[in-house]
Amino acid sequence: MTDATNDIERIGGFHAVASALETDRPIRRLWLAEGRYHGRYEQLVAEAEARGVAVETTSMKRLDAWLPEVRHQGCMVEVALPRAYRESELGELLGKVDTPWVLALDQVQDPHNLGACLRSAAAAGVTAVIAPRKRAAGLTAAARKVAAGAAERVPFVVVTNLSRALDRLKNEGFWVVGLDGESEQSLYTTALPSPLVWVAGGEQSGLRELTARHCDLRVSIPMTSGIESLNVSVAAAVALFETVRQRSPNA
Amino acid sequence: MTDATNDIERIGGFHAVASALETDRPIRRLWLAEGRYHGRYEQLVAEAEARGVAVETTSMKRLDAWLPEVRHQGCMVEVALPRAYRESELGELLGKVDTPWVLALDQVQDPHNLGACLRSAAAAGVTAVIAPRKRAAGLTAAARKVAAGAAERVPFVVVTNLSRALDRLKNEGFWVVGLDGESEQSLYTTALPSPLVWVAGGEQSGLRELTARHCDLRVSIPMTSGIESLNVSVAAAVALFETVRQRSPNA
Repeated sequence: MTDATNDIERIGGFHAVASALETDRPIRRLWLAEGRYHGRYEQLVAEAEARGVAVETTSMKRLDAWLPEVRHQGCMVEVALPRAYRESELGELLGKVDTPWVLALDQVQDPHNLGACLRSAAAAGVTAVIAPRKRAAGLTAAARKVAAGAAERVPFVVVTNLSRALDRLKNEGFWVVGLDGESEQSLYTTALPSPLVWVAGGEQSGLRELTARHCDLRVSIPMTSGIESLNVSVAAAVALFETVRQRSPNA
Repeated sequence: MTDATNDIERIGGFHAVASALETDRPIRRLWLAEGRYHGRYEQLVAEAEARGVAVETTSMKRLDAWLPEVRHQGCMVEVALPRAYRESELGELLGKVDTPWVLALDQVQDPHNLGACLRSAAAAGVTAVIAPRKRAAGLTAAARKVAAGAAERVPFVVVTNLSRALDRLKNEGFWVVGLDGESEQSLYTTALPSPLVWVAGGEQSGLRELTARHCDLRVSIPMTSGIESLNVSVAAAVALFETVRQRSPNA
């Protein structure tokens, strides 16, 4: 159970709470139900105190409200979730690695697609994923769930204006390559430049014209027929792993 | 609104029904609410009769039950959905093309993943997708929705025993290649044989040992670190499009 507004995840139930306390995830607070504060929870309290996690009590009713449909057994922890990075932090993130590369998402609005993109980006070793603030999915609970932990491993950077962000990256030497189903240039006949920014468009209309004009190059994934299309997260994964292939030693 | 048990999709509302009647989708029946059978529906009835589609009347209540949360305005069509193919039909399907290739799904249980695999398979031009009947997602409404129409374009074949089906394909000259995260052989250093069967494992445990033993070859998609993994539908798409790449003229 995650709470997007507070950027915390709520985990309830004796074993799940005990297990969360054993990880190195950033736990904010352990909550115990007043009426239930008995012997069984002593080990949770001891574990929390050993980690310096505050222990508080509350009513069963409030726990029910925080964790609907979860068998919380009168105990819950709040885990702090990573926030999206700010645009001003992008430079530092990219400066940390030898060959930075970026996945830019242009108005991807479905949190499931954002989550799937984050998971694939983490697996491919992308340095950062960037997306505009407006008309785009944010790092919500749904996106984090689909990302299967990747939202905590690949930085997600929210920018005010995607075209301007792409221009800045170009000025720093990046090549901006758009995934564009309309392009006649095939991904598979393109030697991908480096350092690289991949740009993938939204679910409905793909790459916006404005965004497309900020690309150095546009390529398409060859399909068997005109009626076929790929989900944006699948198209992004195919492009990211073609990059991995081109950079692998024996390719 | 689709009904998995009956293999029909129910479409309600004046414009949606009119639009469905204009396509070449196989319409089974046009339903009109008794009290609402008035002038406005004459063109629907005319269109249905011109196509030889039966017109029936029913109560608003029954339409409400068939189409909960849909503004059906007293009219509905039933569209026949394609059924899964039988194992005995696989040979004929594969015989229709010069270079047949197959995606085999080993216990993919999430209908969303099945739908995503079907969409990618259709886009890559796969000849057929096969999956076992047991412990695997079927062609449900949820799978069809995610497939975005691909379930009607790439044949989905349900087999009784996947290992036996793979053996039969081998006997007919197919090479069976498993996607296996544990394999030390990289997808990107492998010349993919032809005709080809790709085998992708389920969400939880990947390729089963039994299935893995029926593969001629097992390859992995290179990841940046051991903790990363790909969603099964993304992994399948990366493998399918690497096949497309290797077979494209200028690769």
